[in-house]
Amino acid sequence: MGSINGKKYIERLDKLKTEIWYDGQKITGKISEHPAFKGLLQTKAHLYDMQLKPAFKDIMTFPSPTTGDPVGMSYLMPRTKEDLLKRRHMIELWARQTGGILGRSPDYLNTVLTGLASSAAWLENRNNCFPDHLKAFHEKAREEDLSFTHTFISPQVNRSTMYFGESDEPIAARIVEENEKGILIKGARLLATQGGLTDELLVFSVGKYFFNENEAFAFAIPSDTEGLRFICRNSFVGGSSEFDHPLSSRYEEIDSIVVFDNVLVPWERVFYYKNAEVAEEFITVSGFHSFAKHQVITRQIVKTEFILGLAELIVETINIGEYEHIQGKMSEIIIGLETMKALMEKAENHAALDEWGYMRPDLSTLKVAGTVFPKIYPRLCEIIQLLGASGLITLPTEKAFASDIRKDLDLYVQGATKTAEERVKIFTLAWDLTMSAFGTRQTQYERYFFGDPIRLTSDLYKNYPKDKHAQAIRNFLKLKQ
Amino acid sequence: MGSINGKKYIERLDKLKTEIWYDGQKITGKISEHPAFKGLLQTKAHLYDMQLKPAFKDIMTFPSPTTGDPVGMSYLMPRTKEDLLKRRHMIELWARQTGGILGRSPDYLNTVLTGLASSAAWLENRNNCFPDHLKAFHEKAREEDLSFTHTFISPQVNRSTMYFGESDEPIAARIVEENEKGILIKGARLLATQGGLTDELLVFSVGKYFFNENEAFAFAIPSDTEGLRFICRNSFVGGSSEFDHPLSSRYEEIDSIVVFDNVLVPWERVFYYKNAEVAEEFITVSGFHSFAKHQVITRQIVKTEFILGLAELIVETINIGEYEHIQGKMSEIIIGLETMKALMEKAENHAALDEWGYMRPDLSTLKVAGTVFPKIYPRLCEIIQLLGASGLITLPTEKAFASDIRKDLDLYVQGATKTAEERVKIFTLAWDLTMSAFGTRQTQYERYFFGDPIRLTSDLYKNYPKDKHAQAIRNFLKLKQ
Amino acid sequence: MGSINGKKYIERLDKLKTEIWYDGQKITGKISEHPAFKGLLQTKAHLYDMQLKPAFKDIMTFPSPTTGDPVGMSYLMPRTKEDLLKRRHMIELWARQTGGILGRSPDYLNTVLTGLASSAAWLENRNNCFPDHLKAFHEKAREEDLSFTHTFISPQVNRSTMYFGESDEPIAARIVEENEKGILIKGARLLATQGGLTDELLVFSVGKYFFNENEAFAFAIPSDTEGLRFICRNSFVGGSSEFDHPLSSRYEEIDSIVVFDNVLVPWERVFYYKNAEVAEEFITVSGFHSFAKHQVITRQIVKTEFILGLAELIVETINIGEYEHIQGKMSEIIIGLETMKALMEKAENHAALDEWGYMRPDLSTLKVAGTVFPKIYPRLCEIIQLLGASGLITLPTEKAFASDIRKDLDLYVQGATKTAEERVKIFTLAWDLTMSAFGTRQTQYERYFFGDPIRLTSDLYKNYPKDKHAQAIRNFLKLKQ
Amino acid sequence: MGSINGKKYIERLDKLKTEIWYDGQKITGKISEHPAFKGLLQTKAHLYDMQLKPAFKDIMTFPSPTTGDPVGMSYLMPRTKEDLLKRRHMIELWARQTGGILGRSPDYLNTVLTGLASSAAWLENRNNCFPDHLKAFHEKAREEDLSFTHTFISPQVNRSTMYFGESDEPIAARIVEENEKGILIKGARLLATQGGLTDELLVFSVGKYFFNENEAFAFAIPSDTEGLRFICRNSFVGGSSEFDHPLSSRYEEIDSIVVFDNVLVPWERVFYYKNAEVAEEFITVSGFHSFAKHQVITRQIVKTEFILGLAELIVETINIGEYEHIQGKMSEIIIGLETMKALMEKAENHAALDEWGYMRPDLSTLKVAGTVFPKIYPRLCEIIQLLGASGLITLPTEKAFASDIRKDLDLYVQGATKTAEERVKIFTLAWDLTMSAFGTRQTQYERYFFGDPIRLTSDLYKNYPKDKHAQAIRNFLKLKQ
Repeated sequence: MGSINGKKYIERLDKLKTEIWYDGQKITGKISEHPAFKGLLQTKAHLYDMQLKPAFKDIMTFPSPTTGDPVGMSYLMPRTKEDLLKRRHMIELWARQTGGILGRSPDYLNTVLTGLASSAAWLENRNNCFPDHLKAFHEKAREEDLSFTHTFISPQVNRSTMYFGESDEPIAARIVEENEKGILIKGARLLATQGGLTDELLVFSVGKYFFNENEAFAFAIPSDTEGLRFICRNSFVGGSSEFDHPLSSRYEEIDSIVVFDNVLVPWERVFYYKNAEVAEEFITVSGFHSFAKHQVITRQIVKTEFILGLAELIVETINIGEYEHIQGKMSEIIIGLETMKALMEKAENHAALDEWGYMRPDLSTLKVAGTVFPKIYPRLCEIIQLLGASGLITLPTEKAFASDIRKDLDLYVQGATKTAEERVKIFTLAWDLTMSAFGTRQTQYERYFFGDPIRLTSDLYKNYPKDKHAQAIRNFLKLKQ
Repeated sequence: MGSINGKKYIERLDKLKTEIWYDGQKITGKISEHPAFKGLLQTKAHLYDMQLKPAFKDIMTFPSPTTGDPVGMSYLMPRTKEDLLKRRHMIELWARQTGGILGRSPDYLNTVLTGLASSAAWLENRNNCFPDHLKAFHEKAREEDLSFTHTFISPQVNRSTMYFGESDEPIAARIVEENEKGILIKGARLLATQGGLTDELLVFSVGKYFFNENEAFAFAIPSDTEGLRFICRNSFVGGSSEFDHPLSSRYEEIDSIVVFDNVLVPWERVFYYKNAEVAEEFITVSGFHSFAKHQVITRQIVKTEFILGLAELIVETINIGEYEHIQGKMSEIIIGLETMKALMEKAENHAALDEWGYMRPDLSTLKVAGTVFPKIYPRLCEIIQLLGASGLITLPTEKAFASDIRKDLDLYVQGATKTAEERVKIFTLAWDLTMSAFGTRQTQYERYFFGDPIRLTSDLYKNYPKDKHAQAIRNFLKLKQ
Repeated sequence: MGSINGKKYIERLDKLKTEIWYDGQKITGKISEHPAFKGLLQTKAHLYDMQLKPAFKDIMTFPSPTTGDPVGMSYLMPRTKEDLLKRRHMIELWARQTGGILGRSPDYLNTVLTGLASSAAWLENRNNCFPDHLKAFHEKAREEDLSFTHTFISPQVNRSTMYFGESDEPIAARIVEENEKGILIKGARLLATQGGLTDELLVFSVGKYFFNENEAFAFAIPSDTEGLRFICRNSFVGGSSEFDHPLSSRYEEIDSIVVFDNVLVPWERVFYYKNAEVAEEFITVSGFHSFAKHQVITRQIVKTEFILGLAELIVETINIGEYEHIQGKMSEIIIGLETMKALMEKAENHAALDEWGYMRPDLSTLKVAGTVFPKIYPRLCEIIQLLGASGLITLPTEKAFASDIRKDLDLYVQGATKTAEERVKIFTLAWDLTMSAFGTRQTQYERYFFGDPIRLTSDLYKNYPKDKHAQAIRNFLKLKQ
Repeated sequence: MGSINGKKYIERLDKLKTEIWYDGQKITGKISEHPAFKGLLQTKAHLYDMQLKPAFKDIMTFPSPTTGDPVGMSYLMPRTKEDLLKRRHMIELWARQTGGILGRSPDYLNTVLTGLASSAAWLENRNNCFPDHLKAFHEKAREEDLSFTHTFISPQVNRSTMYFGESDEPIAARIVEENEKGILIKGARLLATQGGLTDELLVFSVGKYFFNENEAFAFAIPSDTEGLRFICRNSFVGGSSEFDHPLSSRYEEIDSIVVFDNVLVPWERVFYYKNAEVAEEFITVSGFHSFAKHQVITRQIVKTEFILGLAELIVETINIGEYEHIQGKMSEIIIGLETMKALMEKAENHAALDEWGYMRPDLSTLKVAGTVFPKIYPRLCEIIQLLGASGLITLPTEKAFASDIRKDLDLYVQGATKTAEERVKIFTLAWDLTMSAFGTRQTQYERYFFGDPIRLTSDLYKNYPKDKHAQAIRNFLKLKQ
């Protein structure tokens, strides 16, 4: 079958009988028509549509190794630096459609799955591991152009270091039974972005030592698997007007809690289970981090460009470019952008083949970028707020412009180089990006995308090859040790 | 008549025929029943109700010098340090009802008017000045317990230093005619908080050199004066549920653009006009800055206490108090609070009588506090976000708790020391304070409350008595000059 | 005898046969003539001289309760707020002589001893405690106007939390024997500022849990006690020219390592020993922290004033006061100064009697100040460097001005409002304060004065009375717990 | 002749009769034996020696296009990316000898001259310009391996924007006469690093609009030209012990004021004169900025590596690597290093031929690096201070280790994994790099290397190609303008 278009994507989703709870109610009709999801699904449909358009097809797809049909470039396992660049150009093209704001465009989780599958061989001959399931599932996903959400955060009941999280009733999702059909999961996971709005749910665990073998697993199941329940937070769609809510009306990716109410995961969908060591190490040794970070940082660069463009437009609109402190703030954005771009370029330049012959961008450099962006993104948003100042507070609406008071607005809200309507559009975009509930959730999302920033920072230090530099000082001082 | 209660306040507002535009429509019914305004007006009604309650009366009122009836303490012109403390205790009591979040509780503009009126004598014998109008209006306001909004920001068309803002059609509100009845105003002012939701509109100009005598004036007029028009931004009321929107459902103070469509200001309401020098200086020499900052900083201290309490509750809920970096963040809040409190105390200790016998808190110290708070407030909000982390992203709603999935929530969203419902209430409050559209507008509001922070900072330096310290160094180095 | 003058101070020191090692050599001659110590001792002698001058006597001394003779105000145990102010005025007067730069003017350790002695009663009836020795020693010190250094930092061999610091040979000073004459100490302590340059050495332990009873003690001994050895670091006296080295030529307080080579501390000089609990708690319950911080913060305020004056003089010299970014930097200094002053004022306003009837400034507020200053001091120094910029790099010397090239200097190095010589004096002072080895040691000194800043910050959080604020939020949200 | 060795370098310098004033005295003997200059000249001699060593010759030199003799790689005008890399490897090799600390290794000014000369063609047919003189001088310098200092800062009398710096007596160096032999210069320039310690002085002007044609020139003259006078600041050589002063004893590059006392610059040494437009533009259009920044940033990267190595050694010495806040600080250094390296790599990847066929690294990217480093360098030094903490305060000297108290030191000053002597060496290096007068001058040097950071930042914004990003937003919002 290969790459799908938007219509197919929507149809498939509407057909699923996924259990989604929204504001205390179980969704019953078509999810593509629900006001909280509609904008997002249309945006994603638009992205899928691009895949088969002649203008983009070569960038967005490659011929399936099994059928020759065009399949999504995000499923490509790169073997050369050119493959890496192909992947990046696809990521950029999609990211640019939404200013890098859509965190979970299809390529993100396709890339995650591809990163894991590219290292399936590592699972061979390990206990309770099914590398073939993983490879087969990757192929199926590629050929059917499946969409995904995933979830790896366990409930945050108690973050004390002294607390080991045991209770009689499973809280964090875990295996409660194992039978001939598969494994039975009970408990919850937090924060599945777009949870319930994709064909499949990918579940695995990252980044901590596991005290409990029953919490160590990786699998994928259809969103409408029995016993699977998505509990959404309130939507941050501000309204359906693109004028008033240029971002949230289209890009709001709702988050949800995932409840596993004795969910059966059939064996062919289990990649590994009850193997804490594998659960801990596979994430690290596989292509997961390299490829996922390559996707994410590419998107973040596009987003930083979006912010720079928007900032410059604000400066232009109210003519503040001559102020030294404004120049300083604009330069901060430029430095942020150039730093991220340079790190991406370095990671690609220093890409190397892994032991299975896949070309991985340099992880150490990507980690630096992944530590930098969560630090600068909140500041970039703050700069937008500082440029817009009180102008971000009193924004007239689309309907106001369509009413009798338009003449007042045209006169009193005009910008130095812009009509009132243009100015309001620009400032409304700035508001939606940095000050709406949608925008602040984006800030929190970027801040924690790669995990706890404190842990990331510690990890960067611990794994960085610093001893050669220490050795240089030992030589400089003629020390023995 | 003296101090009013909430019922009286609402009745009076509903009776006015103020022209308010909301989302392209002119408001027609009672404003107290409009969903965008209802919560706020009830909150303010509750504040007015406190004035006459036996438990608070002595704190909230003093006997009118003309009638002996209890009148609002915010109208008191202080003559002693005790008077200053009385004023502060009234401000604190009101501020604590809303955690310091309601920026425009009635005492704010009452204090502004009182600060101006306390120096009315300065206007005597100056051209186009009417000190008696100002004094009479202050008395009227006090006796009738009038409520106010004000506005002093001119349209931000072009902020370049090279731009002198002239156009044929008035953009910034200015005098276009002067006749026996009064002065005629045409043009706009931006950003009247609660514009249209008060009995009166106070108009004056601050903080810049005036190129145009026609823009130099001060007056007050009823909100429903003919030709006066308030154009609201979109409301940030997230919804009517106090559970889901603990702050915006009650404290959203809408902002509006004020249009003067040939508004006649009758002479008895004009305090001065067409005198650029007076317009520039009166604000500085009068009690305005001292008394207004005393009110604002008292409220900001209460708000900082609110933030500290909320932060501590988050720490407790997920049990993160043992982490060094959490302790560091909590200490930042404590330092911010103690700094503000110490500055307030210093300003009061060093209060001194002005030339008309009124006791002013030390302005220089208040300016320091007024420079500090806009710097720390955004950081305090960021700390709340950093403490709550991903826990702020997936908050279930009131209706979710009332539905069949409550048992899931009770289990999976519980905190270390809190039930799921309590935990969600605490995190929802954190979200509404710092991440909702209501919350980010608060951040912008505090950031710019006292004006452009860069200008404030420059002003602090320019007016600070630093020469004695320079002289000490001259002596130390035995320099001649 | 009572307060001494400078001559007496020098004579007494020269007479001691203290074992001081400097750059690999044991000092043999008079220490007051050694180039590394001379400037400091003269500065201190000048301070002592002030005590008996009619102009200062009432500020610097009070009548001895035993003899009626004038004794140093720093020995006064305050019983009223007036007493506290008297103490502060004395501290300010001395601090102003050196711009607050002399960290260990005599009042610092006199205050420390007074703070401990004021709570001697707490030691009564506790094991191995001698409150009478402490009281008697305080009286002796007051009547003879003894000078002190102290030391409480143990060698920093290994700062890992996993390391418990045991070794066969004592490294940290500890009791190795106890006999009828007293206790025998062996081991070292680090960082005695002015070590060897005072009559006495005060030894006690602060701020950590003691694993070893043998390290738990407090005592005082003459600097020339047998077996006591002071090993100095290199001197940071840049030279004897006051022009070229305005600070280091006079205020360099050398630091030393203190070695106890089986030092006998006679019983009458032991305040407590081998009681870990007392060693840990006495520091906290006694007046030590309140009174010591009161002294230190007063000095730091004087130093901040010195920095503000110097900064303003630089601004004036090269005429840069009109730049917005300069105004911003100057405002940072002003904010720092006003914050410290306000906190001091609050601490004094809220002073309260302790259980023994002594008036202690509010410790909680002083702790805030003690957390703030180490954070801002390095930034204040950085601001001085940013104001002076390249002008701090090429400073001609005193001898250059006395040579044939003076005419070049007069022409080319002049300032906007200053002669070349004046300008160079000002910039040289800025250099010596922030860029000389003397100046950077000052930065490190202030940064760590109160201990490890991370621990201080944690401590501030842990001990702050924050629950009332958390309770207010519980009420606001109507929570049960 | 081609590349010289150290002996030749020293001999040539000693032979010059340069007029150097040090601490009020004119230097008379050999400068290579003066304690203030000796260490530096030996260090530079060592660098020159490397050029002809077989192991380095291919990296350090290339065959002269005129003679075929090996000449310094820093004189190479690059025509390919390989040439650029050759240049970088030479820069790195030299920089690594001194940890990147020697700011003015010979390659710096050789590169500056080469950058200017590579664009000499631009001067053709412009008024008062002598491109042939510039080309010929570059060739001469290359063939004779001349060493340089330069100077472009005018005296900082008054930095007000209102001040235009006119006086009767020339203060800033300017042309006072023009005759058949050449031009006559009178006045001063500030801050020639190594002024007087090189064969030649290069003079040109950068980065501002010239009000005065007489100040617009570029030329080179021998250091001992008549009337040329170098007035040194005090030396920051702390002493001759490499143990106690590992950096200042060897790398102190003294700064000096340059006085032109009617100095005749012969025509063949004049590159242009009395052409303000050329003086302003040539610096910008020539290869100067690209090549100079390429050299400087390469050195700064080496220095950052040095700091990382030193920091890691401190961490290891006192075993503090497990602390989260230490890991955070170490990560800051790593992020700084990786950012600089990535930017350098990007600048080289995007190198392009200029109109005269020379391969320039991408200036826009180098400017970002040149804005980043002055911001992070002071913080890197602060991190070193925070890691070393009180351990940086009491450092025993070389002679102390050679004396009887060595046994005390060995015991009490040891580190967790180091002997006392090793530990002291490491901490002394940290002190000399960040806290000695030498170290703080380095901080100021890096902070201002590329000029006023505020202006640099403004310049970065003004010249950055940001409009494409603004256009993307215009498209996103479907704006017309």
